[in-house]
Amino acid sequence: YRMVNLYGKHVAVAWPDSEVEGVKDEAVEIMVKTKKSYVLAGNEWKRDPTVVKVGDVEIGGNKVVVAAGPCAVESEEQTETVAKAVKRAGASLLRGGAYKPRTSPYSFQGLGEEGLRILRKAGDETGLPVVSEILDPRDREVFGKYADMVQVGARNSQNFTLLRELGRLGKPVLLKRGLGNTVEELIQSAEYIMMEGNGNVVLCERGIRTFEKSTRFTLDIGGMVAGKLMTHLPFCADPSHPAGKRELVHSLALASVAAGADMLLVEVHPRPEVALSDSEQQLTPESFQLLMERVRALASVLGRST
Amino acid sequence: YRMVNLYGKHVAVAWPDSEVEGVKDEAVEIMVKTKKSYVLAGNEWKRDPTVVKVGDVEIGGNKVVVAAGPCAVESEEQTETVAKAVKRAGASLLRGGAYKPRTSPYSFQGLGEEGLRILRKAGDETGLPVVSEILDPRDREVFGKYADMVQVGARNSQNFTLLRELGRLGKPVLLKRGLGNTVEELIQSAEYIMMEGNGNVVLCERGIRTFEKSTRFTLDIGGMVAGKLMTHLPFCADPSHPAGKRELVHSLALASVAAGADMLLVEVHPRPEVALSDSEQQLTPESFQLLMERVRALASVLGRST
Amino acid sequence: YRMVNLYGKHVAVAWPDSEVEGVKDEAVEIMVKTKKSYVLAGNEWKRDPTVVKVGDVEIGGNKVVVAAGPCAVESEEQTETVAKAVKRAGASLLRGGAYKPRTSPYSFQGLGEEGLRILRKAGDETGLPVVSEILDPRDREVFGKYADMVQVGARNSQNFTLLRELGRLGKPVLLKRGLGNTVEELIQSAEYIMMEGNGNVVLCERGIRTFEKSTRFTLDIGGMVAGKLMTHLPFCADPSHPAGKRELVHSLALASVAAGADMLLVEVHPRPEVALSDSEQQLTPESFQLLMERVRALASVLGRST
Amino acid sequence: YRMVNLYGKHVAVAWPDSEVEGVKDEAVEIMVKTKKSYVLAGNEWKRDPTVVKVGDVEIGGNKVVVAAGPCAVESEEQTETVAKAVKRAGASLLRGGAYKPRTSPYSFQGLGEEGLRILRKAGDETGLPVVSEILDPRDREVFGKYADMVQVGARNSQNFTLLRELGRLGKPVLLKRGLGNTVEELIQSAEYIMMEGNGNVVLCERGIRTFEKSTRFTLDIGGMVAGKLMTHLPFCADPSHPAGKRELVHSLALASVAAGADMLLVEVHPRPEVALSDSEQQLTPESFQLLMERVRALASVLGRST
Repeated sequence: YRMVNLYGKHVAVAWPDSEVEGVKDEAVEIMVKTKKSYVLAGNEWKRDPTVVKVGDVEIGGNKVVVAAGPCAVESEEQTETVAKAVKRAGASLLRGGAYKPRTSPYSFQGLGEEGLRILRKAGDETGLPVVSEILDPRDREVFGKYADMVQVGARNSQNFTLLRELGRLGKPVLLKRGLGNTVEELIQSAEYIMMEGNGNVVLCERGIRTFEKSTRFTLDIGGMVAGKLMTHLPFCADPSHPAGKRELVHSLALASVAAGADMLLVEVHPRPEVALSDSEQQLTPESFQLLMERVRALASVLGRST
Repeated sequence: YRMVNLYGKHVAVAWPDSEVEGVKDEAVEIMVKTKKSYVLAGNEWKRDPTVVKVGDVEIGGNKVVVAAGPCAVESEEQTETVAKAVKRAGASLLRGGAYKPRTSPYSFQGLGEEGLRILRKAGDETGLPVVSEILDPRDREVFGKYADMVQVGARNSQNFTLLRELGRLGKPVLLKRGLGNTVEELIQSAEYIMMEGNGNVVLCERGIRTFEKSTRFTLDIGGMVAGKLMTHLPFCADPSHPAGKRELVHSLALASVAAGADMLLVEVHPRPEVALSDSEQQLTPESFQLLMERVRALASVLGRST
Repeated sequence: YRMVNLYGKHVAVAWPDSEVEGVKDEAVEIMVKTKKSYVLAGNEWKRDPTVVKVGDVEIGGNKVVVAAGPCAVESEEQTETVAKAVKRAGASLLRGGAYKPRTSPYSFQGLGEEGLRILRKAGDETGLPVVSEILDPRDREVFGKYADMVQVGARNSQNFTLLRELGRLGKPVLLKRGLGNTVEELIQSAEYIMMEGNGNVVLCERGIRTFEKSTRFTLDIGGMVAGKLMTHLPFCADPSHPAGKRELVHSLALASVAAGADMLLVEVHPRPEVALSDSEQQLTPESFQLLMERVRALASVLGRST
Repeated sequence: YRMVNLYGKHVAVAWPDSEVEGVKDEAVEIMVKTKKSYVLAGNEWKRDPTVVKVGDVEIGGNKVVVAAGPCAVESEEQTETVAKAVKRAGASLLRGGAYKPRTSPYSFQGLGEEGLRILRKAGDETGLPVVSEILDPRDREVFGKYADMVQVGARNSQNFTLLRELGRLGKPVLLKRGLGNTVEELIQSAEYIMMEGNGNVVLCERGIRTFEKSTRFTLDIGGMVAGKLMTHLPFCADPSHPAGKRELVHSLALASVAAGADMLLVEVHPRPEVALSDSEQQLTPESFQLLMERVRALASVLGRST
């Protein structure tokens, strides 16, 4: 068996070839037997929803948390402009890509560490904790230094090497679902992080690959709802990537909140038409402000705050 | 070209091999050229949203219309019990299957015309217009006699023979999207109905086939939102079939309304556990009442009524 | 229970609510209990592969049967030209669409009964039995008159009204898989035909809807192979529709034969570039001749003839 | 622009924001402009098919190359037994997993470096070059030491960090398609490797995620055929993973070869029923021997050897 410290408890997880009943360790408060392909991320042993703290922001509690910012950090000015705008509109977290996993090697690959530094600065100036995507397990230290929450993108959703490393880093993780992965596999990926003692994982539905082509990806709201019944971890929805077009982002964001999303991840750019990536789907600051007002009204009738 | 009377207008639609400019008919008020694979269902020539009237109920206007009732009409008692319950809870239409398209020929196939008669009676007693699914173009008369709105199921979404017949019947049509059809194809199917002069079509998103297995189908809310930008026809969402499990129905219904659905189609059974079909996904009357309260609260912040 | 005459036997099939053990009918030779969602089409009660005869042509035996011809019958000349060419190249059946189920109502819809007449004439002149697609159950008589084998297209794969009618018509049926249907559902659709006493059904894999866009549909060869283990009915593969481009047709045809297809359905047009439908994917007569040579060589090493 | 040495040539690849026409470098023999999302992997600049050499084995030439071996290296004895068996049957390469990317962290994760050492030894004893999957870019050296060809699995198909590292390592790469990736994206992933100067990439079709459940994944043979028209790189097909059941493996393997696969990757285990992973889909040595005979016969009529 393996001992994991999670949520302030000593948890013993049994391997398929061992028996948790045999555990004699006095420090063990909870013992979990492996019945499913995920254990620690499942809600059989932990009924209460997990609240993930990023700075002062609580994800998974009453509040619908909104993280917003540019697809890619392009410059100090662009990032600061967006940071102030999303802060003013009511966002709780600042997002921005520094290392960009682009399908084509000929697309803009991000500013790297410099991008993280810019994001950190904009976050500090506005008081917003920052979240950014990691691609390489060897970048662990630089993310440890600059980021408040580390994002795993759809393409690395089953990059178990990276997941284990983030389990050891200990920072809150925003784990996106892979394009071709089931909700169950998403939860199994979270298990890789939690096995290393990091229970601060937020799962993110961001659309899957289907035959439908009027949207970029198919936002699987049903999968998110079904997933919430399987895990104690909070769920984020990303309405920007499945939309692919900014006219669709508001409706997908509202639908996600109505379905029970604990968090939204929204791309906002001061001038989307000149953005170096995802130009079509980023909201203007004005549109984001309107979205926040709509989310706020919606959250209130659902008994939640923003 | 072809002359179609739609929404009180004389519309001339040009074939690919003809020219609408050449139309000299004085009665023609609107001329539409074929540029896309759908024309009459598109919103290039008709900007205002279409309101489909079923009895006194208006679908596509301010109100979020809810149609509810059993998957299948099983008996007079069952149907009346449900009809009264959904009426009391605030539903505007009564749904119920009389001819059931079951994947297996060994499953319950519905009561046929007797089922329609029972549905009609329950509708009359409660003052709810009724909607039921047609499978055979030769049943046109019997549906003309009993139904207020005729439903085309997912399996017949591209049964063009049936669609044309419903175009001629003239009754309002609830047209479901096929399991493997794009939103564009759904709109093209509506075109087949409209070509015969029947503009009273409500499109229905009911989930598509994907690899995800935690839900029965994947409700494509993004497809519905994208579809609303392509057509003037109203959109209905069916949260029951994609859910497959009753615990998921509320969330999918709320998400659909938040995303802009004009109508909901919900399965309700007095005792779901003994239902002859779709036992897992039908709501109890109590659960449906709660759903209506939640939909009402949600609609109000969206500036809509129920 | 229901009595069905199939393959010269009296078969009693039990309903879920009845018991086949209780059958006392002396005429019953075989009794089948309903355990799965399909029975007559399954191979639990009938181990030997079924051979479907269309004229003198046997589908499901040693020979790899090739049906070829135009997507749509356009004229007497076009059809005769193709019929002679495919006959010369070694095809055993002539295919051609008279009633075309086009996604858009503005596309060419086929010549109707006149198309069937032309096809019949070309078949008679070349000695090739003919196969054509039916869309409307009310066209039963006209197909009874002109066609040797009746095709059900992908869009009507779950049009149970049509399937039942073809069960009663009794002619051999080529049943295509729906774009969003599983192999199991295809077999269940065959069950609807067989329940009416018609066991002459050939199942056809023609590609399913997936996210991949370099081909028109995804030919599911694995599904066909898995299906062959579930049923005694023969399998046809249609390489033309999934290809969408003629450069891909040969490879998909050869792959299908290597995987065990009993029949191929190939679109051939004397001048594909001016075809009224599916222009991109129809083979020229020359290319078809080459394909037949390649199929012949392949079949020989598999121990089959053509 | 970027200078890349590929296939013994100096190639200059232009960035979207630069111009290859401006290149004045005398060493440049070939200049490629970025028109598509992939360049070096495309066949516009390099018409002749690329032959990838692994030891003495040539992939992409006349021979259909077969790599076979266990899903996971479990012990020295198991690996040697399989190695001798597949060698005897005619395989050209030995495959075996040392680092296993298992969806669940509670499944067997492989023997790690010890597994690679065992594989190397078995390869040396039988004279078969070895191929094994890498998960972590930091394992570059250990793979450099033990492996002749490095495999990138489906889950890491868009792990660009890992791909770049393998581009620098320089060893031949077997690059699998991700479960939710298009063929175009697979080719774009190869571009990441080639950009670092490593042109020895074999693309591998191994099945995609679809709604069909009678097979584990849907082997996209059409995608492979379409892909071969887009790239000069050779294609491998993996019939074992999409099959999921050993009864289907032969047919999928033969179909792949008939469709033009240059290589097959087949799982073979001395006693599949006790295998620590993928127990259902591994062939016995006897079944593999029969498969090789069938592949050999098939290849001969296609004008290829094995």
